[in-house]
Amino acid sequence: MKQLEERILAEGNAVSNEVLKVDGFINHQVDASLMREIGKDIAAHFKDRGITKIVTIESSGIAPALMTAEEMGLPMIILKKAPSKVLNEHLAHTVVVSYTKGTSYDLTLNSDFINENDHVLIVDDFLANGEAATGALRLLRSVHATIAGISVLIEKSFQPGRSKLEAQGVEVYSLARISKLDKGVVEFIQE
Amino acid sequence: MKQLEERILAEGNAVSNEVLKVDGFINHQVDASLMREIGKDIAAHFKDRGITKIVTIESSGIAPALMTAEEMGLPMIILKKAPSKVLNEHLAHTVVVSYTKGTSYDLTLNSDFINENDHVLIVDDFLANGEAATGALRLLRSVHATIAGISVLIEKSFQPGRSKLEAQGVEVYSLARISKLDKGVVEFIQE
Repeated sequence: MKQLEERILAEGNAVSNEVLKVDGFINHQVDASLMREIGKDIAAHFKDRGITKIVTIESSGIAPALMTAEEMGLPMIILKKAPSKVLNEHLAHTVVVSYTKGTSYDLTLNSDFINENDHVLIVDDFLANGEAATGALRLLRSVHATIAGISVLIEKSFQPGRSKLEAQGVEVYSLARISKLDKGVVEFIQE
Repeated sequence: MKQLEERILAEGNAVSNEVLKVDGFINHQVDASLMREIGKDIAAHFKDRGITKIVTIESSGIAPALMTAEEMGLPMIILKKAPSKVLNEHLAHTVVVSYTKGTSYDLTLNSDFINENDHVLIVDDFLANGEAATGALRLLRSVHATIAGISVLIEKSFQPGRSKLEAQGVEVYSLARISKLDKGVVEFIQE
């Protein structure tokens, strides 16, 4: 998506070969009109696939996922990063371990909202090692949903997230694919 | 807002005199078209007030805040609940203590995105004791922004949040004001 790549070049901050900060328009300050264009793009790519729900992971994926959901006329489900305080027999959960950040967290889903009749599209902000996405897949499969694909705004293509997901038979649709990242350097895969 | 009150009556789950679950359309599964209507309502109420930014608190307020931001043609800023991993000299923060939940968390804001030239509207899902909202006000004032008001989807009017905020001179605009909550019982203030 040209518009997103241009924003990354103009306003992203490539801090190191690991960290690209997009706090000015995606993660902290959010450009609603850019999110609208992103939602339209993802909805167009995944139209007529029988998708029933848009799923995202708390919290940076909520904005693009909501726009995608509105464009497709579907509900959005937010996988929550902390266990619900209220006891609930319908709560499915999995543990996501982030080796890069050295942290782990619970990812939870109430199975009242997604079940074996659902065909879901996951929307998130970043794909790097695919840890969060793999956790989301595990959780969605535990409630017997099928997966239409995963769409991310920014893919760090030099990290193994895409290949891990594709190895599981999941389509990955990324709006910006970064081939090279370093302090002050961002390069994209041209498709 | 009649549409929101009706959804709460039809699909909300009044668990106790403290807990109203709206997981089916606001917090966990999100109804994008309802969020659109909510965004339109809030935008109409606060139009022509010179607002420059919409601010919300991670993460249940993101959906209605994003729709409000798009309706008003403004950016949305998400106050983050955990400190940024990346060191940043521009990071303002405050600690929010939730006495009801017995928890506390850091709320952070990068002052590159909000400063003394900004007049902000806060949008969040719930207002009860006003702990999160008061933390947000503290943070926004620390970067010298002025406050246009606070809009919430659901106000527990039998708790002191509104009066605390009004005592600070802040307008509170709530789309549904609950006067009575108990197991299986939800009543609204009729205005």
